[in-house]
Amino acid sequence: MNQQIILVERPEGWVTPEHLKLIETPMPIPGDGEILVRNHWLSLDPYMRSRISAAKSYAQGVEPGQLMVGGTVGEVIESHSDRFKPGDMVLAATGWQLFAAVPAKQALKIEGDDVPPSAYLGVIGMPGITAWTGLMTICEPKAGETVVVDAASGAVGSVVGQLAKSVGCRVVGIAGGPAKCDFVVKELGFDACVDHKDPAFEQLLDDALPKGIDCLFENVGGAIFESLLPRMNVFARIALCGMVSEFNRPPHAHHTLRSILINRIKLQGFIVSDHMQTWPDIRQALRQRVAAGEIKFRESVTVGLENAPAAFVGMLKGENFGKQLVKLID
Amino acid sequence: MNQQIILVERPEGWVTPEHLKLIETPMPIPGDGEILVRNHWLSLDPYMRSRISAAKSYAQGVEPGQLMVGGTVGEVIESHSDRFKPGDMVLAATGWQLFAAVPAKQALKIEGDDVPPSAYLGVIGMPGITAWTGLMTICEPKAGETVVVDAASGAVGSVVGQLAKSVGCRVVGIAGGPAKCDFVVKELGFDACVDHKDPAFEQLLDDALPKGIDCLFENVGGAIFESLLPRMNVFARIALCGMVSEFNRPPHAHHTLRSILINRIKLQGFIVSDHMQTWPDIRQALRQRVAAGEIKFRESVTVGLENAPAAFVGMLKGENFGKQLVKLID
Repeated sequence: MNQQIILVERPEGWVTPEHLKLIETPMPIPGDGEILVRNHWLSLDPYMRSRISAAKSYAQGVEPGQLMVGGTVGEVIESHSDRFKPGDMVLAATGWQLFAAVPAKQALKIEGDDVPPSAYLGVIGMPGITAWTGLMTICEPKAGETVVVDAASGAVGSVVGQLAKSVGCRVVGIAGGPAKCDFVVKELGFDACVDHKDPAFEQLLDDALPKGIDCLFENVGGAIFESLLPRMNVFARIALCGMVSEFNRPPHAHHTLRSILINRIKLQGFIVSDHMQTWPDIRQALRQRVAAGEIKFRESVTVGLENAPAAFVGMLKGENFGKQLVKLID
Repeated sequence: MNQQIILVERPEGWVTPEHLKLIETPMPIPGDGEILVRNHWLSLDPYMRSRISAAKSYAQGVEPGQLMVGGTVGEVIESHSDRFKPGDMVLAATGWQLFAAVPAKQALKIEGDDVPPSAYLGVIGMPGITAWTGLMTICEPKAGETVVVDAASGAVGSVVGQLAKSVGCRVVGIAGGPAKCDFVVKELGFDACVDHKDPAFEQLLDDALPKGIDCLFENVGGAIFESLLPRMNVFARIALCGMVSEFNRPPHAHHTLRSILINRIKLQGFIVSDHMQTWPDIRQALRQRVAAGEIKFRESVTVGLENAPAAFVGMLKGENFGKQLVKLID
């Protein structure tokens, strides 16, 4: 039997594990041109919250009763395609389940061992490519500029900061708690990190940003974004990647938009799946840097599909530390 | 004697005429390379509110006791420059006063009679060039798209809409009251206009925007902007030119920023004085269209420098109808 996690009902407000349910289903049977994959890794990502929201979002939502969507890495155990053979490792978007039959053309073969397979879901996968795309195409940071990224220890933020350092920027992260901030500075090499849970947050921001902000990679939204906007410099750029703090509650009341006018800021929302044609080159560039040790990454691993709902809820609350994965095999 | 209007104190909240004061000063004496100008027209513009605000803005503020800044058109009555002779009409930024001594290089000679001199302060001046710059460089409208502009009957909005029509867009204006809306549709040729004072504003917006908004030229901010944001289409662009509704009160609480993310919107603030090198070409292009009758304009004329403060306050409340000018000679 296969196991899947399906949506029970669309959450309003905070998601709880009870909004999701583990069910047993028949083993999928691959058709012509398809492969049967046993998943090893499931990726948990903030965008999934939007997919199960009742509110309009940028992609087709998951309906109650349907399989949760998600990226997976697994092993081919049966192939009806000459592009794959049993034993091959593949990246695909098969959702929250142990086994999946996938059209071969929707799977990417994982080759080489310079990076671990799980990295295809994080640092050289959708999150890493998101970081590259927003930073390089919207922020366009130049050496000497100050770049700020929030959710700085996460799958996207950690790559944003390291890329910005490689361009020669001063990089300031924002993260929740001293452990994450320590990691961001000491392991990832950011110049500073501000703990948004610290009561002195505003003062700490001032201290960390003596020259203001030229580029902001915004993952969080809400009160943090509201505090950052007035600190932006003239002609600053903001890549709006996420507003995860506003997922589970009514929209934040933003009072600082005037900074966009008086500082002639460019604020641009983006979704990395709008730019699929650029993924292969970006993945390759990230892979070289990861393999060379120039970009570091951290994973937060939960074991067992049955524990994915709790891990997902925890991630939305910031309880993960690095890229959140679910390991599906022993 | 000369007459000037100076700032008495920086207003907090609404400006009143009492924040400004008429004084008599000695007649200015032009030095070498300067011209003495008798002003005929003073331009009143929303940006002046920022210059007298205590809050940070994008330009040097006017200090209490100082002459109010502003664009003027006047006649040269004495010249110490071989670039001008008495009788020449010039555009310059001499502020709220009857006479001014100006370096010749800071004055632009007004030539030809295909457009009236006052147009240099409006439709072919800073407001018209503002309209062109924001629409063409940030919004980049394409034929068939829907363009929305608020403060649609004003000096900037009226040009935005007519330019967008010339590109082949569906153009929807937003203005205060039926008279302005009638003008925008019947005289300027917009496809529709929504009265933001109408209690059915939201429903009227829906009716006027069956295909959403691709380009928004935002002059007003506040509740209007908040209502428009969720109506933006995927990959829409917003030129943020002003937030005049937020000048005289605490900042509006914006709850609809999520649209920027999910619709991958580009929102960009701009100030036309950042782009001085483009002014001559844009002015020439606007002039040809105005002279050919392709772009229409309307002026709201107050007579007498002593009445400029009340006219300024009225303009900030939307009481003007078209480009607000003060006529300084009989």
